[in-house]
Amino acid sequence: MEYKAIKLVKRPDITITPDLFETVTLQTSELKDGEILVKQTHMSLDPAMKGWMSPATDSYIPPVALGEIMRSSGIAEVLDSKNEKFAVGAQVMGMIGWTEYAVSTGEGLQILPPGLPADAVLCVLALPGITAYQGLIEMGKPKAGETLVVSGAAGSVGSMVGQIAKAEGMRVVGTAGTDEKCRWLEEELGFDKAINYKSDNLGDALKDATPDGVDIYFENTGGPVQHAAFENMNAHGRIIVCGMIADYNTNTPAPGPNWIDIIRKRLTIQGFAMPDHWDNVPAMSQKMAEYWMNGQIKYRAHTLHGLESAVEGINLLFSGGNTGKLLVEL
Amino acid sequence: MEYKAIKLVKRPDITITPDLFETVTLQTSELKDGEILVKQTHMSLDPAMKGWMSPATDSYIPPVALGEIMRSSGIAEVLDSKNEKFAVGAQVMGMIGWTEYAVSTGEGLQILPPGLPADAVLCVLALPGITAYQGLIEMGKPKAGETLVVSGAAGSVGSMVGQIAKAEGMRVVGTAGTDEKCRWLEEELGFDKAINYKSDNLGDALKDATPDGVDIYFENTGGPVQHAAFENMNAHGRIIVCGMIADYNTNTPAPGPNWIDIIRKRLTIQGFAMPDHWDNVPAMSQKMAEYWMNGQIKYRAHTLHGLESAVEGINLLFSGGNTGKLLVEL
Repeated sequence: MEYKAIKLVKRPDITITPDLFETVTLQTSELKDGEILVKQTHMSLDPAMKGWMSPATDSYIPPVALGEIMRSSGIAEVLDSKNEKFAVGAQVMGMIGWTEYAVSTGEGLQILPPGLPADAVLCVLALPGITAYQGLIEMGKPKAGETLVVSGAAGSVGSMVGQIAKAEGMRVVGTAGTDEKCRWLEEELGFDKAINYKSDNLGDALKDATPDGVDIYFENTGGPVQHAAFENMNAHGRIIVCGMIADYNTNTPAPGPNWIDIIRKRLTIQGFAMPDHWDNVPAMSQKMAEYWMNGQIKYRAHTLHGLESAVEGINLLFSGGNTGKLLVEL
Repeated sequence: MEYKAIKLVKRPDITITPDLFETVTLQTSELKDGEILVKQTHMSLDPAMKGWMSPATDSYIPPVALGEIMRSSGIAEVLDSKNEKFAVGAQVMGMIGWTEYAVSTGEGLQILPPGLPADAVLCVLALPGITAYQGLIEMGKPKAGETLVVSGAAGSVGSMVGQIAKAEGMRVVGTAGTDEKCRWLEEELGFDKAINYKSDNLGDALKDATPDGVDIYFENTGGPVQHAAFENMNAHGRIIVCGMIADYNTNTPAPGPNWIDIIRKRLTIQGFAMPDHWDNVPAMSQKMAEYWMNGQIKYRAHTLHGLESAVEGINLLFSGGNTGKLLVEL
């Protein structure tokens, strides 16, 4: 059977451009013993993918080799199976890549319970949810009554972070780049305050929104919010550094704050990446499922259509043009 | 009995100047029940004292009130006692202040075992040693074979950090501001490498000295060493922020490094101050005594003479003019 896939053929300079990719037509192979054929239905687009396209660094995960199918996570249906662990018709999740079909040994694929909507899986139980849980709960160790500031609050991870924090009894302040996103955060997700970071008075607005200071700052963006939040940290505050999307598309990343306050306020700043925490993923997915079933988590997906929509669509993450978790329906 | 003491009468603008202080002559009072009279023999001068002189911030310890005797730690001999816990002739340590004599209830004063040299107490068992132990061991969690970089390595804390690290089997690289200090670190204290940070090629020198990267960076200074060390951090590296002396005497502290590497390398950056860890001080002093008795710790004191030498002498800490732990013998 013929299908389309997209290979990475060039590394990005600063921005992701269509010439980095090549769409190819492939043919599914006959299944060997132990193999399965899957048809991908939903493909997740995430900021980390820019790092996977870039030249090797001592980063946490090796880059995609040139000429290989671009790496991504997604959900697929099992169409044919010579592997007894995977029944035909089962829904699976894993690193399937930018492809319509794939033949796999099933390694790294997780079988999903039947009946779960694909967008809920990708928005809540998969990477965004577990990333939020790992950073906020496992590392930030929030206490009820404390104040959280989260940047990129309308993004896939930020929106989960804020809602988990509300469920844990925190005061929650988020920043986002449009008034529409801010309204969504306050009116739909129950944030105590959402601030458009492009407004003139970010510093004052953040200070006003955190009358008791900031106990946890969850960093998704870098940029001006970083400095405004840092200035308002309380003694023994925790800063969780999950993303720096404002600096991913520049060759001259902005300096960070001076470290004197790290001593004066005895701050802890921690970076993390999920590949260090895979062992804990099933337990964290379960926790996210519980919040969701309790009605404490809402999500919205920004859905593109068709494999090739990924090529241009991924840049919505860096322009802030997406409204909700970016995914591609195939 | 008449004695001299020095009061803080003005707050520093940027630097510490003699007009901030006033020397007064006081009279010891008759001891009430429970009180003791002590004669201070050795007074410690430490970088943190600049913070204690400065206007109140949300820092970890309130400033010295104007008109009060300047705060400092020191060692004293008990001259007279109406407190059964303190025998006449005992040696005590505590926050005695810039004064020749003091009448005290004994609260906060620790009785020292007999026969300990005062400079060893102030250099190894007191603040420098326990600060080094808390930061390096309790927070940095070093492993044998890992690489440490410590800035301000010839300073009172830095020299203890490096020697503890050697005792724990680490590769130890220090930075200091003169060639003489670097020779002392390598030849006397056994550092694997000491680098004069004022040399032109700090970045290259640090990279060459840490062929396996940096696992723990112990920050005492800020300034150019911070950036050079940060660039060479290994994945899962720990940065302990203890001091930023390069920035204490300026109104325009230098920016810190961009935070992208905090994610890529999953770094942890932690600030600390000893008042949060007083409970653990006896245990840590004991550990420092063990290193010392094992011959693993050397120290050198830079001794000034006479109470009033503190007024100008304290600035040696900020110019880097001291060679060893700065103290005043009374």
